[in-house]
Amino acid sequence: MNTFGRNLRLTTFGESHGKAMGGILDGMPGGVKIDFDLILRETSRRRPGQNHLVTARNEKDIPELLSGLTDDMVTLGTPIGFIVRNTDQRSGDYGEMADLYRPNHADFTYDMRYGLHEPRGGGRASARETLNWVIGGAIARQLPCMKNISIKAKVISIGGVSGTQEELVEIVEEAKKRGDSVGGVVECVLEGVPAGIGNPVFGKLHARLAQAMMSINAAKGFEYGDGFAAASMYGTEHADIFTSEGGRIRTQTNHSGGIQGGITNGMPINFKVAFKPTPTLLRDIETVDKEGNSTILKGKGRHDPCVALRAVPIVEAMAVLVIADEILGVKC
Amino acid sequence: MNTFGRNLRLTTFGESHGKAMGGILDGMPGGVKIDFDLILRETSRRRPGQNHLVTARNEKDIPELLSGLTDDMVTLGTPIGFIVRNTDQRSGDYGEMADLYRPNHADFTYDMRYGLHEPRGGGRASARETLNWVIGGAIARQLPCMKNISIKAKVISIGGVSGTQEELVEIVEEAKKRGDSVGGVVECVLEGVPAGIGNPVFGKLHARLAQAMMSINAAKGFEYGDGFAAASMYGTEHADIFTSEGGRIRTQTNHSGGIQGGITNGMPINFKVAFKPTPTLLRDIETVDKEGNSTILKGKGRHDPCVALRAVPIVEAMAVLVIADEILGVKC
Amino acid sequence: MNTFGRNLRLTTFGESHGKAMGGILDGMPGGVKIDFDLILRETSRRRPGQNHLVTARNEKDIPELLSGLTDDMVTLGTPIGFIVRNTDQRSGDYGEMADLYRPNHADFTYDMRYGLHEPRGGGRASARETLNWVIGGAIARQLPCMKNISIKAKVISIGGVSGTQEELVEIVEEAKKRGDSVGGVVECVLEGVPAGIGNPVFGKLHARLAQAMMSINAAKGFEYGDGFAAASMYGTEHADIFTSEGGRIRTQTNHSGGIQGGITNGMPINFKVAFKPTPTLLRDIETVDKEGNSTILKGKGRHDPCVALRAVPIVEAMAVLVIADEILGVKC
Amino acid sequence: MNTFGRNLRLTTFGESHGKAMGGILDGMPGGVKIDFDLILRETSRRRPGQNHLVTARNEKDIPELLSGLTDDMVTLGTPIGFIVRNTDQRSGDYGEMADLYRPNHADFTYDMRYGLHEPRGGGRASARETLNWVIGGAIARQLPCMKNISIKAKVISIGGVSGTQEELVEIVEEAKKRGDSVGGVVECVLEGVPAGIGNPVFGKLHARLAQAMMSINAAKGFEYGDGFAAASMYGTEHADIFTSEGGRIRTQTNHSGGIQGGITNGMPINFKVAFKPTPTLLRDIETVDKEGNSTILKGKGRHDPCVALRAVPIVEAMAVLVIADEILGVKC
Repeated sequence: MNTFGRNLRLTTFGESHGKAMGGILDGMPGGVKIDFDLILRETSRRRPGQNHLVTARNEKDIPELLSGLTDDMVTLGTPIGFIVRNTDQRSGDYGEMADLYRPNHADFTYDMRYGLHEPRGGGRASARETLNWVIGGAIARQLPCMKNISIKAKVISIGGVSGTQEELVEIVEEAKKRGDSVGGVVECVLEGVPAGIGNPVFGKLHARLAQAMMSINAAKGFEYGDGFAAASMYGTEHADIFTSEGGRIRTQTNHSGGIQGGITNGMPINFKVAFKPTPTLLRDIETVDKEGNSTILKGKGRHDPCVALRAVPIVEAMAVLVIADEILGVKC
Repeated sequence: MNTFGRNLRLTTFGESHGKAMGGILDGMPGGVKIDFDLILRETSRRRPGQNHLVTARNEKDIPELLSGLTDDMVTLGTPIGFIVRNTDQRSGDYGEMADLYRPNHADFTYDMRYGLHEPRGGGRASARETLNWVIGGAIARQLPCMKNISIKAKVISIGGVSGTQEELVEIVEEAKKRGDSVGGVVECVLEGVPAGIGNPVFGKLHARLAQAMMSINAAKGFEYGDGFAAASMYGTEHADIFTSEGGRIRTQTNHSGGIQGGITNGMPINFKVAFKPTPTLLRDIETVDKEGNSTILKGKGRHDPCVALRAVPIVEAMAVLVIADEILGVKC
Repeated sequence: MNTFGRNLRLTTFGESHGKAMGGILDGMPGGVKIDFDLILRETSRRRPGQNHLVTARNEKDIPELLSGLTDDMVTLGTPIGFIVRNTDQRSGDYGEMADLYRPNHADFTYDMRYGLHEPRGGGRASARETLNWVIGGAIARQLPCMKNISIKAKVISIGGVSGTQEELVEIVEEAKKRGDSVGGVVECVLEGVPAGIGNPVFGKLHARLAQAMMSINAAKGFEYGDGFAAASMYGTEHADIFTSEGGRIRTQTNHSGGIQGGITNGMPINFKVAFKPTPTLLRDIETVDKEGNSTILKGKGRHDPCVALRAVPIVEAMAVLVIADEILGVKC
Repeated sequence: MNTFGRNLRLTTFGESHGKAMGGILDGMPGGVKIDFDLILRETSRRRPGQNHLVTARNEKDIPELLSGLTDDMVTLGTPIGFIVRNTDQRSGDYGEMADLYRPNHADFTYDMRYGLHEPRGGGRASARETLNWVIGGAIARQLPCMKNISIKAKVISIGGVSGTQEELVEIVEEAKKRGDSVGGVVECVLEGVPAGIGNPVFGKLHARLAQAMMSINAAKGFEYGDGFAAASMYGTEHADIFTSEGGRIRTQTNHSGGIQGGITNGMPINFKVAFKPTPTLLRDIETVDKEGNSTILKGKGRHDPCVALRAVPIVEAMAVLVIADEILGVKC
């Protein structure tokens, strides 16, 4: 449940306000030179506190790699263990929430599942967990067989508005001023993935991407290629006609999003992920406590007004983990 | 890759025009009385040829259960093997397609993955495979712990139009007359799933549902709760305020779709799946052969003008398999 | 539980007196030509009734391959489903045993595990299940990367006596005359397995072989290399000194049995499996029924006086499945 | 490969002379009070340096638990991450061995598998890895459903001699004086495991125990119940006659070792594990370097003259992990 992947397996742990986050990346072949700066670049992209739009927590989020590498940072083929200490816990911020069920958070459902939950900061359900995923993805990205593959995500709409980066930022700022939050959509494009990657029938590449993306906190929807729009189309509109170009078979259009029958056809892969507004609001909200008594959840603390902004490097990391896993299973 | 599930595992095989489809359902506890008629009811719902809107293949699709049951149809706790013979193969229909790559089919990608593909009727990539899933789901549905859970899917739009069943059918008929096909959206609602089902962080219930639904042929998108619409919303709109009702904590609204943090909260679960138009058209289409030479794919044979219509019992079956798997892992 | 393997997965089903045995072999790459006669040769080696020393059941044990192959018997890369009908059931033979717990059989433990058990012939716990394994192994053996690997098992002792085949057979015949049964040891030698196969730390090759061999009915012990004798040795006796021979590093002796740290070193692999005497005896035995009442189990029916004799092709099949699985994961 | 278990999964990492050992125990239910002292007691039993018979490394081996627990040491149901720093590395001790292949070590096979190996102290193949297993086992042992189960191992013979503890110790001391090492056998007895635990056909309890025990460094053989001796017996000798005692069905003898058909019958489970002599000797040994040139490996450094002595708590820990895993899957 806390493991992702088959050939390249990331197993993670950590509560947001516990001692540390961490994980084990198992399945990296031996002999891969790892650039630590590339890991830091990804964790830095993910880190809150980079700008005024995201929450002001200030952990440095510098992972310590504990195994699986020579002194020269070459993989040994053995599992790479890593941890990141939680240095900026400020647990007092959340203290009064301990007995309340915050709306749209996992407090209540963890109680139903485990009989208790960590009351500080979301515990295991915190988006801080995705730091582990970004670290895993940043290592996997350095596999030789991933080098020619480009995986890039970006926010394409906020609160239903598509626009320039400036316009999108403005929508978030407006929401923040009102103590509100807002949803958004992230698109990811993968170029250079060779044809023939993926596995029928329950391991279809898009099904695995769907599972990976829906694992990200606040994700509510996934689509690839024409996605939901394809449900409004006719077959004659949706057809991707094959053509031969310099001896290589490709399609004239890419309604399919680069995947047919769960296997890549060599065209760019594209998918979109919908994120709901951050459930934490800087407003007082009506809720109940563990006994079901009505009460008020005070709006305070730090929060991200728009989780979609933070999700960009996380979407990329999970896409990297899926593709690396599949490629290692076939032709790395 | 051909196995779905952890506690209840369905492993399947079969090419559409091979000798038989079949599977093994492993993990059913002992002592469960199985009603064979309930299995037939589901396979019959899925079967082509029920009405003039779906392809005219006429297999009886009656599964033979080969193991795991007493003579009185009580589960032994051992794996249930089953097969369904492919009796109506008419392989000549597809003969000329053997060397062509049909647009939006998996012929080309299977060649890239395996070096060859079964040229008759889609082989393993055929939607006939979902017959195995419906059989597995129909057995799993009979688990005692599934008895009070209602899982119901329906088509909610065709070609972008929401309407009554009659209106939707008319859209499909129009498309069929033109030799065209059309996409659609299926919605599924699960009621009675107890709170506390699902597993963080990579086994979130909605992530597993996403993987399951995206495994269905022609699926292009998945969303749950408010789904993509949540990406256009503000946090204040999306909040599901907790309330206490007769000693039971529930939410006033259900934007979350019954799942928070990957675990059920006891509210109804709802999700939608987008299906593209069937790629097979009754028209001539430009394409290439294996050597990349341009050629024409003749439009003939049988085909479903709207895969979404067929998908309803399949969506239900996969939802059953996900929920049964999770419940067996926790509290069956 | 009914699946073996990671890259090459065999999932099986079947009760000895149910409709059929069967399985799904998933993970065979595409393009492998399968010789059906080689499968029959293995099932025939395993089949009871070949000579007067083994039980007289006379199923033909001819598997029907249902999927995953072209008409020319070339693998498609998709799962290979197979079944073998149980034609010679004679269920009356076991009828009176239905309510008794046969000593050293699994009747009682299946009741404890599943709440019921199939009373005819051992059900799922019957050694007939190993027919599925032999079929799976016979297919896997035809992988190109298995072609230069020799995997050969033989009985090396019966009832504690090592001797020629004639002497061993005589011991079994003597036991049979007395309505008794007798144990034995099977040795297996694998030659040609390349160096570098296996995975630390929980996937050590010898640990996987141990699990595979201990899965065989009646197996009580496993050892490889010097095995239990190594526990009586000093380090100076046990050392396998490295040497270089024609540019290839090898060891002068092979106390290690071809595996160091769970990974092959290119030397022959050898292991032994101990089998207990068949629990079925042709004598009256004291036992209890389901209610715990004392009763007598009448000695009659068919039985193998020495399961070790039957185990030879099964040991080989399981060794093939382990090696093929590992090689497919690394360098096939 | 570095993960053990299905319902309770231990994933580990660490090279003996890297920064840290560590692991993630995933699958512990919520609400279990953990006594840290019980973990320390087990790691202390395993720790080298306790007496003059085992290697003099002096790490304190105090694990740091990083997640999955409340401040009061109650499990949250989330994964428990832990690390143990490697503080006493003295890497210089092994420096000269970097280019040599030590006999019966995994240096050569790791090179074959991964293209390189960590030259200091065995790296991932070091027995220090078993510290992670002992920690995992010590946590699992505290599950409520494990409380009434007794799992106790002991050394029963050294160098082929069975005797009192004093006699066995003397054999090891003699070997040590000569710079030699010696093998031994560990026996483990499990009492209180309820009937009905285990899973046919590839998940048989004894097959899982075999895999677990053969994963331990230096293990060469596994047997349960009568084990290899059963291969020398007749069916009439080996039969475990059922009897009813105070309404509970049990067997008069226990040749089966508490397991029939892979499932427990409620009788004590017993098994034995054979360990080879430690491959490290305090003598000069002939070997080759990476290029195959003959050379001499100098005998120096620390070493355990008898790995079987150290294995006792490790055998117990792995037995705990197997039983806990199975019980969590059935009836915890």
